[in-house]
Amino acid sequence: MKKPSLECCLTPSLSELTDFKNKNVVVIDVFRATSTISAILNNGADAVIPVKDLEDCKKISGENILYAAERNGQKPPGFEFGNSPFDYPENIVNGKTVVLTTTNGTKAVEISKKNAKNIITGSFTNFSTVVKWLSNNKSDTILFCAGWKGQFSLEDTLFAGAVAEKLQTDFILEGDSITGAKSMYTEAKKVGLLDYAKQAAHFKRLQHLGIQRDMEHCLTFDIYNVLPIYTDGKLIASETGF
Amino acid sequence: MKKPSLECCLTPSLSELTDFKNKNVVVIDVFRATSTISAILNNGADAVIPVKDLEDCKKISGENILYAAERNGQKPPGFEFGNSPFDYPENIVNGKTVVLTTTNGTKAVEISKKNAKNIITGSFTNFSTVVKWLSNNKSDTILFCAGWKGQFSLEDTLFAGAVAEKLQTDFILEGDSITGAKSMYTEAKKVGLLDYAKQAAHFKRLQHLGIQRDMEHCLTFDIYNVLPIYTDGKLIASETGF
Repeated sequence: MKKPSLECCLTPSLSELTDFKNKNVVVIDVFRATSTISAILNNGADAVIPVKDLEDCKKISGENILYAAERNGQKPPGFEFGNSPFDYPENIVNGKTVVLTTTNGTKAVEISKKNAKNIITGSFTNFSTVVKWLSNNKSDTILFCAGWKGQFSLEDTLFAGAVAEKLQTDFILEGDSITGAKSMYTEAKKVGLLDYAKQAAHFKRLQHLGIQRDMEHCLTFDIYNVLPIYTDGKLIASETGF
Repeated sequence: MKKPSLECCLTPSLSELTDFKNKNVVVIDVFRATSTISAILNNGADAVIPVKDLEDCKKISGENILYAAERNGQKPPGFEFGNSPFDYPENIVNGKTVVLTTTNGTKAVEISKKNAKNIITGSFTNFSTVVKWLSNNKSDTILFCAGWKGQFSLEDTLFAGAVAEKLQTDFILEGDSITGAKSMYTEAKKVGLLDYAKQAAHFKRLQHLGIQRDMEHCLTFDIYNVLPIYTDGKLIASETGF
């Protein structure tokens, strides 16, 4: 049997050059959307509804809804919840639906919606769960780095590289980006993920906001055993395949 | 004195997110435009005129002109010269002007023209000459990878990484791409540039065309001591700064 392919789309700016059709897509926004989504669903929320624009958030109404937003690393005025995994302990999110818009991550979900076969979200905090799901699913897959405002980002690419390292015997690594990502991850391991990621522009950006704790959390492997999967306009915790 | 910055633009698709204004730009198209330009100017041509579109090539007329083109790795019909460094021995190009259009490299020159302070072209074959010029010039610099049809390419990024490694004490490495490029180059050195680059999509593409010799040439450091610089619409061999 032919092995499935594993590609990496380095930023949403390159998404038009990438064929998402009938592929599994892993949306990656390590700092912090997909790390936060893992926390929200792990801590008992029913769903996360990813929304592209700020103004569309509050058009979604209903019971048990929390409105969450981030722009330029910060919580915009008028929103109670932000983009930190620590904003969502169990007593806050259990049984709730979180409507979330972020600078990069939720936009990448939006792009993937058009053609992807399945969309899941990945971060270091649910790394092994993502790898296991991809491994069981055995389909052509795109690791889609959300980046920063269209730009390449180190931390998302590192995650793609870590996945590539794990899956390189069962998948065919396709295209130059995934090879580059794997090399970056190999280098990052030498000094440690946190120290390597300190070179990232977005790390410095968030550090200025005093949220070092968030970044350390977002660079920790396997805090959660949760697999956010996009179904009927919502990210929910998948219960299949494990 | 503040150190100048060294950035990397990974593909022309990301050029609109990159500020070229008043910066030195090194256009990089290892396979093969900027390697071929090094060969042409080293072997005595007066100039290379980079042209974006095929149909514009022959609008440029005059004495001692050679018309050269490449699309999809091959020489299109109606052109005598292609995009191989071996097409241009001294007895062919000495005293000539080569009008050249390629899939990626000449387009990257076109993009850079709008705002750059200086445009030079770089490849492994003139690596140390490029590094020396940048080092002497001490200005904010963008390493501009031409990529493949807008996509990220491994071999161009490796060149950027090699330059970053050399200049990292005299320049500030700015942005995530240059850090990623440097890591890739560190990994590539372990197995050797040629073996690492064999993973590149464009290597495989050209290998199918039976031009292994070209790729080996293009991955060899410092064959030429030539610095192509863009002046008045032409790339000429710079005589200053050495």
